Amino acid sequence: MAHWQTAAIIGVGLIGGSIGLALRRSGAVEQVIGVGRDPAKLKKAWEVGAIDEFALESSPELPPADLVVVCTPIESVGSQIARWTETAAQGALITDAGSTKAKIVAAVDAQLLAHNPRQIRFVGSHPLAGSEKTGAENARENLFDKRTVVVTPTAQTDPSAVEQIQLLWEALGARVQLMTPQAHDAAVASTSHLPHLIASLLASITPPELLKLTAGGWLDTTRIAAGDVGLWQQILLDNREPVLTALSRFETDLALWHRALEQRDAVALEKLLQQGKTIRDAVGN
Amino acid sequence: MAHWQTAAIIGVGLIGGSIGLALRRSGAVEQVIGVGRDPAKLKKAWEVGAIDEFALESSPELPPADLVVVCTPIESVGSQIARWTETAAQGALITDAGSTKAKIVAAVDAQLLAHNPRQIRFVGSHPLAGSEKTGAENARENLFDKRTVVVTPTAQTDPSAVEQIQLLWEALGARVQLMTPQAHDAAVASTSHLPHLIASLLASITPPELLKLTAGGWLDTTRIAAGDVGLWQQILLDNREPVLTALSRFETDLALWHRALEQRDAVALEKLLQQGKTIRDAVGN
Repeated sequence: MAHWQTAAIIGVGLIGGSIGLALRRSGAVEQVIGVGRDPAKLKKAWEVGAIDEFALESSPELPPADLVVVCTPIESVGSQIARWTETAAQGALITDAGSTKAKIVAAVDAQLLAHNPRQIRFVGSHPLAGSEKTGAENARENLFDKRTVVVTPTAQTDPSAVEQIQLLWEALGARVQLMTPQAHDAAVASTSHLPHLIASLLASITPPELLKLTAGGWLDTTRIAAGDVGLWQQILLDNREPVLTALSRFETDLALWHRALEQRDAVALEKLLQQGKTIRDAVGN
Repeated sequence: MAHWQTAAIIGVGLIGGSIGLALRRSGAVEQVIGVGRDPAKLKKAWEVGAIDEFALESSPELPPADLVVVCTPIESVGSQIARWTETAAQGALITDAGSTKAKIVAAVDAQLLAHNPRQIRFVGSHPLAGSEKTGAENARENLFDKRTVVVTPTAQTDPSAVEQIQLLWEALGARVQLMTPQAHDAAVASTSHLPHLIASLLASITPPELLKLTAGGWLDTTRIAAGDVGLWQQILLDNREPVLTALSRFETDLALWHRALEQRDAVALEKLLQQGKTIRDAVGN
């Protein structure tokens, strides 16, 4: 795989911090620079060993990185990449870790088509890892071990960028799945965004005086409701149409459950429960 | 606490097996007899150390237990208790571990009022523990440690039974919460039965070709969908009215989420996500 001189990680929270730890473990890069707005968070990432050095985003002197991984919330990924196309090394590879891809990738592709003096290569990524925890203090070098990372090339993407980013994620322990940005967004609407919405809804309607009666089932089902509110607000709005499609499918089947229960239809209930169990058992723990 | 001579555990799956292990650890009982229909399951419970001896349910000679814990699926709890009122020791204490309480407790109270030659004392229990796993092979002696067990006395319940069953569950590591059977059923409709229904629904509508793109959020949110289908069919039907009430509350708020997303209402979405996070954060992991 390509050996990188300087990797810049923009945003050193759970994902950025874990990428830093995994990159340093992999030996694929000489140095890892963390870049962000908050000195305390950068210092934390440095203390946990996720980065070799750090720089404030506002610094006029940013390192000429040949690998840039943008791990900020999705609303600022586009502007971060626009900025790094001006300061990264000639021919640098840029990727991101945003949870939605179609809008980000279309915007960056358009940017680079219009203005790309340094021949920057970009391909979008989305590591399917993370949790309700946030911050570099929860980062783990094995966060990506055996996890899927979706990489989303388009017709415009340089094939060498796809190959190199694939090797890079594999060096961090992940399995890479190539998809179009649109197919990715439709998929994660079902596998991630709808579950988040539902988990949050389930938690929110639980009467507080009954919380002492919750057990493993409620704890599991609602766990991700503890996730960052602003982050999920952005994700749901950004991926609104696919999430609405998944939500409609949910509502259609919810009506089947409601009717089965209302009509005391034991056969229908058994069938619905069995469908859920069959799908769930196919994945394992 | 009362010291028991012979505890009979009827049904030695995950819950019955764990009660056996915890009872034997507690030293509160001389011997634990497992009773069931399936010799292979009884043997498994004996192999993992959950019971001292076992007997087939069909055996004409059952031990005169002074403590009986019925851990069968809820549909057979009533008939099991009816049977043990004929064979248990004089003045024995019977409880059960069923996930719903109003119908079971009313039926047993009526039975005992009509015919109780041995002065059997009964009080219902529901340990809020367990998981999607089943069988004595998954039993753990610490399954009840720090978990809540709801005990559901009625006006008819002998106060000594309530006191003794409370001490017993505490000896197994649990915390006891006293509630009426009806209050219990309304509570677990929100904290357990609705989450199960929703987890199963979420799993069932996930397109199978996307399962390779699931990550921690989907895995957590749908985990309990792997639970036993027949068991949950019974629970949902038995507790139908409270579950329908909880389901209606869910549907009302689901419409708020749908509208917020459809109207790109960032403020409403943030508020909804924050409500879910606040409730979830109040419980912890």
